Amino acid sequence: MSQRQVVQMSTSHASYGVCVLGSEVFLDTHRSTPKGATSFDVHATSAVTVHIIHSPMTKPMLNSRWPLDPDIEVVVTIGVTSKTVNDNKVKISYYGWEENEISVAWLYLTCVDISLDVDVSRNGRVRSKGKDKAKWTWGPDGQGAVLLVNCDKDSPNTVGTDSNQVDIQTPADLKDMSLMLLRTQGPSSIFADYKVVLHVSESDADKVRVFHAIRSDSHPQYKPVLGPGMLSCTLDCVRSGENTFYVEGLAFPDAGFSGLVSISVSLLEVPHKYSPGTPIFTDTVVFRMAPWIMTPNTQQPLEVFVCSIKKGINSNEVFLEELQALLRKANCKMTICSELESRSDRWIQDELEFGYVEAPHKSFPVVFDSPRNRGLKDFAFKKILGPDFGYVTRVPHGCDACSLDSFGNLDVSPPVTVRGKEYPLGRILIGSPLPWASGRRMSKVVRDFLYAQKVQAPVEVYSEWLSVGHVDEFLTFVPAYDRKGFRLLLASPTACFKLFQEKQRQGHGEATQLVGIVGSERRSIDDILADEGLRNDNKHVQRCIDWNRDLLKHELGLSEQDIIDIPQLFILRGSRAEALFPDMVNMLVLGRHLGIPKPFGPLVAGQCCLEERVRALLQPLGLSCTFINDFFSYHKLAGEVHCGTNVRRKPFAFKWWRMVP
Amino acid sequence: MSQRQVVQMSTSHASYGVCVLGSEVFLDTHRSTPKGATSFDVHATSAVTVHIIHSPMTKPMLNSRWPLDPDIEVVVTIGVTSKTVNDNKVKISYYGWEENEISVAWLYLTCVDISLDVDVSRNGRVRSKGKDKAKWTWGPDGQGAVLLVNCDKDSPNTVGTDSNQVDIQTPADLKDMSLMLLRTQGPSSIFADYKVVLHVSESDADKVRVFHAIRSDSHPQYKPVLGPGMLSCTLDCVRSGENTFYVEGLAFPDAGFSGLVSISVSLLEVPHKYSPGTPIFTDTVVFRMAPWIMTPNTQQPLEVFVCSIKKGINSNEVFLEELQALLRKANCKMTICSELESRSDRWIQDELEFGYVEAPHKSFPVVFDSPRNRGLKDFAFKKILGPDFGYVTRVPHGCDACSLDSFGNLDVSPPVTVRGKEYPLGRILIGSPLPWASGRRMSKVVRDFLYAQKVQAPVEVYSEWLSVGHVDEFLTFVPAYDRKGFRLLLASPTACFKLFQEKQRQGHGEATQLVGIVGSERRSIDDILADEGLRNDNKHVQRCIDWNRDLLKHELGLSEQDIIDIPQLFILRGSRAEALFPDMVNMLVLGRHLGIPKPFGPLVAGQCCLEERVRALLQPLGLSCTFINDFFSYHKLAGEVHCGTNVRRKPFAFKWWRMVP
Repeated sequence: MSQRQVVQMSTSHASYGVCVLGSEVFLDTHRSTPKGATSFDVHATSAVTVHIIHSPMTKPMLNSRWPLDPDIEVVVTIGVTSKTVNDNKVKISYYGWEENEISVAWLYLTCVDISLDVDVSRNGRVRSKGKDKAKWTWGPDGQGAVLLVNCDKDSPNTVGTDSNQVDIQTPADLKDMSLMLLRTQGPSSIFADYKVVLHVSESDADKVRVFHAIRSDSHPQYKPVLGPGMLSCTLDCVRSGENTFYVEGLAFPDAGFSGLVSISVSLLEVPHKYSPGTPIFTDTVVFRMAPWIMTPNTQQPLEVFVCSIKKGINSNEVFLEELQALLRKANCKMTICSELESRSDRWIQDELEFGYVEAPHKSFPVVFDSPRNRGLKDFAFKKILGPDFGYVTRVPHGCDACSLDSFGNLDVSPPVTVRGKEYPLGRILIGSPLPWASGRRMSKVVRDFLYAQKVQAPVEVYSEWLSVGHVDEFLTFVPAYDRKGFRLLLASPTACFKLFQEKQRQGHGEATQLVGIVGSERRSIDDILADEGLRNDNKHVQRCIDWNRDLLKHELGLSEQDIIDIPQLFILRGSRAEALFPDMVNMLVLGRHLGIPKPFGPLVAGQCCLEERVRALLQPLGLSCTFINDFFSYHKLAGEVHCGTNVRRKPFAFKWWRMVP
Repeated sequence: MSQRQVVQMSTSHASYGVCVLGSEVFLDTHRSTPKGATSFDVHATSAVTVHIIHSPMTKPMLNSRWPLDPDIEVVVTIGVTSKTVNDNKVKISYYGWEENEISVAWLYLTCVDISLDVDVSRNGRVRSKGKDKAKWTWGPDGQGAVLLVNCDKDSPNTVGTDSNQVDIQTPADLKDMSLMLLRTQGPSSIFADYKVVLHVSESDADKVRVFHAIRSDSHPQYKPVLGPGMLSCTLDCVRSGENTFYVEGLAFPDAGFSGLVSISVSLLEVPHKYSPGTPIFTDTVVFRMAPWIMTPNTQQPLEVFVCSIKKGINSNEVFLEELQALLRKANCKMTICSELESRSDRWIQDELEFGYVEAPHKSFPVVFDSPRNRGLKDFAFKKILGPDFGYVTRVPHGCDACSLDSFGNLDVSPPVTVRGKEYPLGRILIGSPLPWASGRRMSKVVRDFLYAQKVQAPVEVYSEWLSVGHVDEFLTFVPAYDRKGFRLLLASPTACFKLFQEKQRQGHGEATQLVGIVGSERRSIDDILADEGLRNDNKHVQRCIDWNRDLLKHELGLSEQDIIDIPQLFILRGSRAEALFPDMVNMLVLGRHLGIPKPFGPLVAGQCCLEERVRALLQPLGLSCTFINDFFSYHKLAGEVHCGTNVRRKPFAFKWWRMVP
């Protein structure tokens, strides 16, 4: 609530007060009403509007006096800023039974204007005198300002993100902040007797930092005035005019932090030197911290990151060449992380996830660093964090990260509408065990962070049935011209057995897989179809994938026609599954260009029947399939093309604040 | 979402499955449709209902066959539990262009019944087959079961609360728990091939414990099956019949815990010895943890706690006699805490707060132990916790508690309606500094707990302007026959000055206060009214109280007529206020009987003019005022009657789940 100002009226002496333009002042007459009075009236100078608040039963008398009903309230507002101190007057006259004036209470009011303003309408401009500034609403007609977490590093001379700096190192950093203006107007002598205090609540103070732009003679200075450990700040020498502040966010929405931060200015009356003062007016603005947003495969790729591994049988030199050719077709930049930087860790998909933050005035990419922390541990912090490239991470408490913490286990769907509910930025997919199962699961701190961003409401799918346990081992999304603009691809043992049976019926039972792969066991279609153990393993796998299929249909609003089954076989090691041959859904999606792990399937008429089938399924959607040999460089090490690459994509054109989460 | 069961159909061999009574089974025909088929139909035995889910454009053909539209879905439900395995049959026939049957897919289904049931309708009974069991709603038409935190101590042989015991020590303890029944029915051989698993999510597992009642030959046994570290439990030898479970709550709603806890049963298909199994049916029930509820002054008093202090000038022997007389009038039990138990700490109001918890089947009082922890630190745990008397506390992290953590700083209003919003259990009042001020504040863990209970939405008032800093130093509530059923009493310097001026005008300016108090400075009315410093101090105090007055009017929906000003003066010590004479609003409210600190005000015609005024204000409401001398025993030590007492009151007749918070 915006606290009303209360002024005690008295018939024994005049009262004096200061009020703020347009705000209500409650004249407390109940305790000063003289004995014998039965009615009253109120007169005031022209700038003052008098409001008599009464029950519907109470009516003014013929002479426009009011009965002294105990529930009647006198409230005044002033619509013009005072030119001089005490230039507004209010007079309350009390009358007795015989309509005689018994006594009079006088009030002298000085009206000042105080307003804290931010970009409420989200157009990059600070409007004066916005309404409902303390309210933040979602949607196309929503209002409320936006803050960015200042998680990039604009100055080369600092360590870590800009939000860790208590001072501003470079003017460029101001562009990551939101502007806030304090406008004051009134007779200057009044500000000597009243304090103007900028303040933030205890719970918000560690989420935000406010800098006061002070124009000194030589160059502008930016003084930190609110932030961690700085809950309030008295503004010295306030005079009529404008004070400029820059606000930076320090923390992303998370468990226990909705993302909303309020900043207030109060005008305090200080009746007593030691008194903390009582506020007579407070103006509050609210910001929402911009969420971290992921980009699905349907967003245009800008840059592909991949690691270079030079030595040994698992060298990826040939892989990099094939990848480079694909990227040329897709018109996409390739950034190679050297073996020194990666410390021989090739799984760049798993170590980080690219996303972005956006405010009306600014947007920049932000890399989310996984707590996985193998060889690539420091890569994001040391090599990606920089000017207008932010960084965020979450560290699990106490326990170590597990395989499900790798960001190959984190994906996001294209935009979907589910039974009328719109997800214009898609939905995050997290691989998990069955809901009640203990054991391997993505760290709670990471899941809490993802849920708290709100705009891409996560769905937890069941991936823990896999040895590695990542969602990208059995699903991916590809763009499509028709229907919802995409297809969900699911790995499918059933589709693979069906394909092999078809080929067997056509007389190709002796065709073998893995042709051309040195040292690998070549199995024929007949052999695979006769393997009862393999069939049972894949029955289980199919059941696990079907469980996800039905969940995804429900949570993403998909129909069967939005899903394509990609032939794939798995094998159980212990109780968990691994791909029997290169796992084709673990592909790199660059617009219409797909980089698919080369499956080395049975050759029928000199053609790999798996490649042939996948082309037949995907080419009609306008997709171009490039099969890349990742057999020794990734597949044999339990990953594929997708695990070995990472794509920075173009942010959504859709502004996140225009959705309703 | 309740996951649908998926069954793969095949034209090459019959399929077999188990399904649950009334639940949907999705027949996946898309991957088994034979080449050349253009339409299909479905026939089934009598207990099976076939649902064809199709787009509005798709219509059955004249011969009641369906076109093979890719978005068409076949779903079956069965309404009768199977007598024998595979006694339901479904046949899908596929037809070609020439309407000839190309091939057929057969499915054999066994129908079992599985249902987890709790007291969904909140009448103390477990209904079979409740609908929407996984949903918990507030209000008079709401539904969903309730759990009690088992925070009492039913067995004398244990340490701490029953919720700390992993086993059940006494059958009486079962009455604090909520009943949950698992009902299963079907051909017994089927349960040998499928697992029935009871489970709870990781985040709920530390909030709840579930005991399975196992009827052995001699006496019933209660085996803990779910709880901290126990996320799931496979039920052995399930057969047709009923399994009984008892559920206890372990944690009150708090920051990060909404109070909702879900428990599920799943029927798992285990295709593989090492497989965790894939669930084909899950039934979920949800409980809400009963909140801790405070009782306002308008609730009937049952028992008054007070400490006995025998020695020295501050002995309270006479006070106890006067109190005893008041309690006799109020027909209320007195419980004296000995000097040994209290370790000479007389401020029993500050150490604890009595409240209660309630479920449809059980209710008991619960004492909330403040983190204040002076002499009375162990009293609640050692002397109050017991059979059907619960205990809860919160310990601040790292930092020590401050004066504002005392529960004299915690109060609750009577039931109120605020601009149409009902608070049938009132609203909690917490004393705080001004919102942005740092310094003394009630610990976050305590405030988080109070907010999380939801049913008495807290209001933070401004009490930090007082040296001690407690809400009970300037406000209280008394019952009244008329209007809202109560009045808010506020300490009022203005009312006191007005009274003294009135007496001065009547010629009693020389009347002195504190008559009869040995060693205290007696000041006359003239003297007090002439004291400019005292007047300025009280101007500040009045402004602080007025700030709260307006806040309380707004947050409790009060009008001026609901508020009574009790004459009182304060004096500033440094920048903070203390009562100048015994603080009358710091009273003990026992129904219509008030125990008010004797103010020792100026004697006018042999009568204390303060007592006379307070009687004149309160007696018309049907209240009886007893002024109790607490001058040396409490007032001189910076407290009064209310600070030195604590009342256990009758719970509300209103059930908390019938409100909408």
